[in-house]
Amino acid sequence: MNNLEKIKKIIIDKPLKLDCGKTIKNYPIAYETYGKLSENRDNAILAFHALSGDQFVTGTNPITNKPGWWSHLVGTNKAIDTNKFFVICANVIGGCMGSYGPSSNDAQKNKKLGTNFPIITINDMVNAQYNLLDYFKIDKLFSVMGGSMGGMQVLQFVANYPNKTKTAIPIACSASHSAQNIALNELGRQAIMADSNWMKGDYLNLENSPDKGLSVARMAAHITYLSQKGLQEKFGRKLQERDDLKFSFDADFQIESYLRHQGSAFVDRFDANSYLYITRAMDYFDLTKQYNGNLSNAFKNTKIKFFVISFTSDWLYPTSENKEIVIALNVAGADVGFIEIVSDKGHDSFLLDVPDFLKSVKNFLEANY
Amino acid sequence: MNNLEKIKKIIIDKPLKLDCGKTIKNYPIAYETYGKLSENRDNAILAFHALSGDQFVTGTNPITNKPGWWSHLVGTNKAIDTNKFFVICANVIGGCMGSYGPSSNDAQKNKKLGTNFPIITINDMVNAQYNLLDYFKIDKLFSVMGGSMGGMQVLQFVANYPNKTKTAIPIACSASHSAQNIALNELGRQAIMADSNWMKGDYLNLENSPDKGLSVARMAAHITYLSQKGLQEKFGRKLQERDDLKFSFDADFQIESYLRHQGSAFVDRFDANSYLYITRAMDYFDLTKQYNGNLSNAFKNTKIKFFVISFTSDWLYPTSENKEIVIALNVAGADVGFIEIVSDKGHDSFLLDVPDFLKSVKNFLEANY
Repeated sequence: MNNLEKIKKIIIDKPLKLDCGKTIKNYPIAYETYGKLSENRDNAILAFHALSGDQFVTGTNPITNKPGWWSHLVGTNKAIDTNKFFVICANVIGGCMGSYGPSSNDAQKNKKLGTNFPIITINDMVNAQYNLLDYFKIDKLFSVMGGSMGGMQVLQFVANYPNKTKTAIPIACSASHSAQNIALNELGRQAIMADSNWMKGDYLNLENSPDKGLSVARMAAHITYLSQKGLQEKFGRKLQERDDLKFSFDADFQIESYLRHQGSAFVDRFDANSYLYITRAMDYFDLTKQYNGNLSNAFKNTKIKFFVISFTSDWLYPTSENKEIVIALNVAGADVGFIEIVSDKGHDSFLLDVPDFLKSVKNFLEANY
Repeated sequence: MNNLEKIKKIIIDKPLKLDCGKTIKNYPIAYETYGKLSENRDNAILAFHALSGDQFVTGTNPITNKPGWWSHLVGTNKAIDTNKFFVICANVIGGCMGSYGPSSNDAQKNKKLGTNFPIITINDMVNAQYNLLDYFKIDKLFSVMGGSMGGMQVLQFVANYPNKTKTAIPIACSASHSAQNIALNELGRQAIMADSNWMKGDYLNLENSPDKGLSVARMAAHITYLSQKGLQEKFGRKLQERDDLKFSFDADFQIESYLRHQGSAFVDRFDANSYLYITRAMDYFDLTKQYNGNLSNAFKNTKIKFFVISFTSDWLYPTSENKEIVIALNVAGADVGFIEIVSDKGHDSFLLDVPDFLKSVKNFLEANY
């Protein structure tokens, strides 16, 4: 990866006690910002990225040269108008885009941390990112938002820091990772660990990376981000640059070629150990359990204005799981709006050009700014 | 695998031209039978197995020492009563339980065939198994039935041999493999091929097998055989023999431990190359295309009595795809019954103790015998 000098970092000197019991300090948080912080510092939005995301929300990601993951939503004159709002996004700890993670150096041993990196949680991620408020001298954010694992961070943030944001938008997420989602994440981890190049996570100090395993993990995940109907409409049984079946194990079908591409493109920008750590954090996420089985206690006396969004064809974080959040917010007497957006684009809808979604976010922000 | 002498085989000397263009002859078909063929030879049921199945339908599988895959349905006084019916099941060609497949010997080269085995189709499987009718001197079967890939074989059989069965029960299947299902099969194949022990399929002549890759493929498939709700009810976030999270990559959750077990148990009984070949055959299955885009032509003038069965929580072969078969049969003027069984057990429902399913099959058979 080139252009590494374009990654902005702050070093957090305040110690952070992780859920696993270990304390970290003097660790880097890599971040990016878009727009300008207003004079009275009331227009800041903290966006949380999902499993495979990073701090480069919009414009061109300088490391991958691809558009930022929320380019449809964030930018000049877009739903989140960067002429108006100051958007901050940090790479989660455990990640591989500059924040403290398994590919960070182990200063004491003069090698990469690998699986000596501690197991982290969504709570740890959020607490680490909270330091950005101090750094930017922001007393209260205008909003926190994110989809998928980003949405889980939203929920954890409002539970931990109820007075630190005016609004919150958890999208396509869950307050408690389901058995099916744990299963799918475990599948990805096993695919990585099955790669003989993984070397129990020590590959970073060696010559070869577990690219094949990571690629399989990405393929598996990618299928879950789409919907049965969406896949059928986009790919169906269309063949890949051929008139008929070739009677081989080559990619006869476009869907096969597409998945192979998704897998191989991913390994160029993502670290296999980070994939293990971040999926583990998602699986460990259970906000309901944190509040002794009563999710509404996570939102007790909150003054935050919530907007919960789900998508009809999202089977990874189905509307039913998003509704559980809405119910708990209502039980807590919170101010909450909810919308289920009709889309065939599956879980990925929150990243795509889904006009009703973009418009809903825009209207909610404008109504509350 | 022990007890290999318990596998019954016939050698098919009649040449079979495969869809790929190659012709095979003098190849083995391994089979098993249950019950007794009646004097007038009118009580035979040909059961077709699914991807990971074999010829051992019920009782104890002598190779794995596990119950046969359709033990809930087939047996003395069961829905398919072996006091009454004569059930035949053959291992599909491409399989690894005695029929001609990639683990067969290449006589000319004195080694295992591996990927020198030809790509086969559902049509090839059915045409190979058709030889069993000659072998048992059965002019007309009482029924053909099967779930998942077994259901595809049912559809292909009735299209190829419309006068050779009285009834047909395609279960939890599709007339044309969907993009999502191709994607999921491709994921399994890539997991196997990513294993450095796969050696382009040549591992059968070497010391190590691609067990890790096959195990990952099986884990992926297994998730798709269950339902979101079923997984949540059975596993939820239950921990595996521990009071709290261990903050490691061990199997903290029961669902993780369960999946790992499913993966490792599978490699003891299944050949990785067979997994590649059989999934390929499933992906190539498109009966609609075989009949120039008009599925009802596959059933033209049929006198066969059909019973199509789907399950509410089966997202791999959803009711909508089973209904397309029902519609085509109706368009063809066929005698067809259809039932959608309410079950939380997902695609696997057709293998499990789902009373409404077992009863439906029993009643259909008895009404028509």
